[in-house]
Amino acid sequence: MTATDSPAYPSFPEGSDAFPHRNLLGIAGLQPWEIQYLLAEAEQWVALNQQSSKHDDRLAGLTVINAFFENSTRTLLSFEIAGKRLGADVVNMHAAQSSIKKGETLIDTAMTLNAMRADAIVIRHGSSGAVQLIADKVDCPVLNAGDGSHEHPTQALLDALTIRRRKGEIGGLKIAICGDILHSRVARSNIICLTTLGAEVRVVGPPSLMPNAIEAMQVTAFTDFDAALDGVDVVMMLRLQNERMQGQFIPSTREYRRLYGLTEERLTRAAPDALVMHPGPMNRGVEIDSNVADDPSRSSVTEQVEMGVAMRMACLDVLTRRARKVEGWS
Amino acid sequence: MTATDSPAYPSFPEGSDAFPHRNLLGIAGLQPWEIQYLLAEAEQWVALNQQSSKHDDRLAGLTVINAFFENSTRTLLSFEIAGKRLGADVVNMHAAQSSIKKGETLIDTAMTLNAMRADAIVIRHGSSGAVQLIADKVDCPVLNAGDGSHEHPTQALLDALTIRRRKGEIGGLKIAICGDILHSRVARSNIICLTTLGAEVRVVGPPSLMPNAIEAMQVTAFTDFDAALDGVDVVMMLRLQNERMQGQFIPSTREYRRLYGLTEERLTRAAPDALVMHPGPMNRGVEIDSNVADDPSRSSVTEQVEMGVAMRMACLDVLTRRARKVEGWS
Amino acid sequence: MTATDSPAYPSFPEGSDAFPHRNLLGIAGLQPWEIQYLLAEAEQWVALNQQSSKHDDRLAGLTVINAFFENSTRTLLSFEIAGKRLGADVVNMHAAQSSIKKGETLIDTAMTLNAMRADAIVIRHGSSGAVQLIADKVDCPVLNAGDGSHEHPTQALLDALTIRRRKGEIGGLKIAICGDILHSRVARSNIICLTTLGAEVRVVGPPSLMPNAIEAMQVTAFTDFDAALDGVDVVMMLRLQNERMQGQFIPSTREYRRLYGLTEERLTRAAPDALVMHPGPMNRGVEIDSNVADDPSRSSVTEQVEMGVAMRMACLDVLTRRARKVEGWS
Repeated sequence: MTATDSPAYPSFPEGSDAFPHRNLLGIAGLQPWEIQYLLAEAEQWVALNQQSSKHDDRLAGLTVINAFFENSTRTLLSFEIAGKRLGADVVNMHAAQSSIKKGETLIDTAMTLNAMRADAIVIRHGSSGAVQLIADKVDCPVLNAGDGSHEHPTQALLDALTIRRRKGEIGGLKIAICGDILHSRVARSNIICLTTLGAEVRVVGPPSLMPNAIEAMQVTAFTDFDAALDGVDVVMMLRLQNERMQGQFIPSTREYRRLYGLTEERLTRAAPDALVMHPGPMNRGVEIDSNVADDPSRSSVTEQVEMGVAMRMACLDVLTRRARKVEGWS
Repeated sequence: MTATDSPAYPSFPEGSDAFPHRNLLGIAGLQPWEIQYLLAEAEQWVALNQQSSKHDDRLAGLTVINAFFENSTRTLLSFEIAGKRLGADVVNMHAAQSSIKKGETLIDTAMTLNAMRADAIVIRHGSSGAVQLIADKVDCPVLNAGDGSHEHPTQALLDALTIRRRKGEIGGLKIAICGDILHSRVARSNIICLTTLGAEVRVVGPPSLMPNAIEAMQVTAFTDFDAALDGVDVVMMLRLQNERMQGQFIPSTREYRRLYGLTEERLTRAAPDALVMHPGPMNRGVEIDSNVADDPSRSSVTEQVEMGVAMRMACLDVLTRRARKVEGWS
Repeated sequence: MTATDSPAYPSFPEGSDAFPHRNLLGIAGLQPWEIQYLLAEAEQWVALNQQSSKHDDRLAGLTVINAFFENSTRTLLSFEIAGKRLGADVVNMHAAQSSIKKGETLIDTAMTLNAMRADAIVIRHGSSGAVQLIADKVDCPVLNAGDGSHEHPTQALLDALTIRRRKGEIGGLKIAICGDILHSRVARSNIICLTTLGAEVRVVGPPSLMPNAIEAMQVTAFTDFDAALDGVDVVMMLRLQNERMQGQFIPSTREYRRLYGLTEERLTRAAPDALVMHPGPMNRGVEIDSNVADDPSRSSVTEQVEMGVAMRMACLDVLTRRARKVEGWS
């Protein structure tokens, strides 16, 4: 199945040429059709990955560098597998060995990777905006694999892909995102993605973890989880980061669970067929209970991981088409 | 040379279909013919690895994940090279970066790797049984690369392959295994493998490092190294782990060497053409002396490393045949 | 473009067969034509790397092991990309996980890599001479990626390639190398390379960082940077290692910059079209100022990185020709 012969693939709007962005730095700035286009593209990779042989040669001869300044086993594995299944030469640059530690500036690192003639650079960094800084200095597409508390666009895309496969069209769905809204790039990218696609998004969490002007993001803010869950089609739980677990933000993990943990009982407030999501890794017994997380009819936790590889394949493919001189992408 | 046209390959017993196991979690439970089958399969990879070009495409399009929760440079390198020479997309997951560190359960890690559609998972873990736990949760073959003090099956297989190539049939050989029998997964897997193949196995070590009911494993236990060595065909030395070197288990490395170090003089007690083995890395001057370890006519230390890559290629090949729909392996 | 059809490639001298060395352990011992040969070979890889698809299959089926006992993100990335673009199976051995940490001797590590049938081993090590020690024990070519304060030959070769592309023939050029001459393997390899090719080399740095008998290397030593710069065609700055920044060698980084930092003003002492080089990563504002480093018409800092990948491809290709039975290289 290819992008052109499937009715699921949106057509380009009048006046648009192909996918008009060089990079994937965030969801902010993407048009609805652009998000839909990437979701549609990912479907072919979902299908390929379910084959016994899962290989495509379209990125053969291209060098993909995964530059991870923050450790993230899952996201790195997902991008590495995505690149390799497309036939690229994939190399990982781990922060721990990085010359950043020797005082090199981020821009020098960017220029080094560029000079090695990378064809795509995937970056994870602890500082918001670091990925943009690098993208400004290199000639190839840059994919943001999470930067500070800014954006994590492939996470939002894989979540949207998961929702679309489970629930159909995203427009009109009621979706609650629960947890540390203040610091979470996953929350931020998902809010932008889901509202752009027309969902009604509610955010819920302790007041200490809720941004002040969150309503400007076209969401409704709650501090009462039960109220936020009322009738929702999707419950998206966020990971409670260890560093927030004690001290200033929440009184205790036990108290957090009592107020913001997704239990079986609490889930009854949502729609009867509500979908439970979590980007992983989960703190079982803190933000989510195992009997909710492990029920495949309600939870899409592992499906999200699967969609992640497919989504990253789609992004690597689409963003390298210009350099690969794919017809119509000049 | 393939498995079917060589007289060295054992035929399947009446009523058996191909290799009947999905995983390689340990040597325990393998029939003699199954071990012999894996040894015979490895021969073609020994031959390939001695070519200038050493590549085969049978695992092309398959994803092999090496998930190492314990550092092990040699074993990881060996599996990584094995997978790559067979054409697989190989990715390494290092424990140090693992989200295990963020509190993720082992089962969640297993389900994550599974959702990424791994075609084989190689696991090294500090806890006995961790590999079984993961194997129960995933759809693809799992290979144990060492779990706690339980098993290290590919080490036993490569040791058996080395012995068979040097000594011919293993049945009937007298083999002494010397060192920390209590904690060693290498000893455990080798005892099971060699006794299953009909060897007479002696184990020897300090009483503090000898399991209580070791005789139940069909071996003879010694505390006197000289007595144990008497007339043996093979002397298999174990690595003395650093953490045992001081304190409760042995009085000192000097004392250990005096009683359980393999010296040239002591080796004269064995059969004149006795083979000296060590899984590496060696503590020279502790459990083994350099003049014994470095004599290629007596020592197979580097040959064991070579057999390791071939043996792991055989295991990856055999265990993925069902998924690859190899004829006769449906 | 291949080695044989380009006028840029030097012919082999009478009586020489191909490239006569098995390893690349240093520049010392290389004849001028041998260096020129490697530079000429690299040109084809510079050209390939500028294509959208940058892949060659000549190392398919070969295993290249990057054994890095010292962290070096840039050099490791460069060698890893070089090997992969040539089609090799590339595996990295990181020191941090190495059994060296378990007390294994360097020679045992070498014999292990050899037994795994590596076809080329790239080594970075903190001790001068460690690479030679390993080369003596293995059957395949060894490439020195930096050993102690001894040599870093691919750095010198990529620097020479950069100079040749910017300035034409190296013979007759006036080149100043500035910084920690005493400890720098980059300086050492460059001095040997550039003097062998007929350049007039000046070295300059604080007396505490200048070797005693440096004149024996056919260079002129300066302690006054301004004097050393007078009329030079190339200024090669060295990185000031963090560990030298305080204490016994220099009074302060500020003082170092005042005396030995390359500023725009100071650069006016050199020839008007002088080329500024730095092996990276740079300490901006210490040994080099940003307005000098970032001017592409004068600085070749990123071009050096680009030449690095091409140069390493050339070295891997040339050194594996015998094993690959390339015609004329038996």
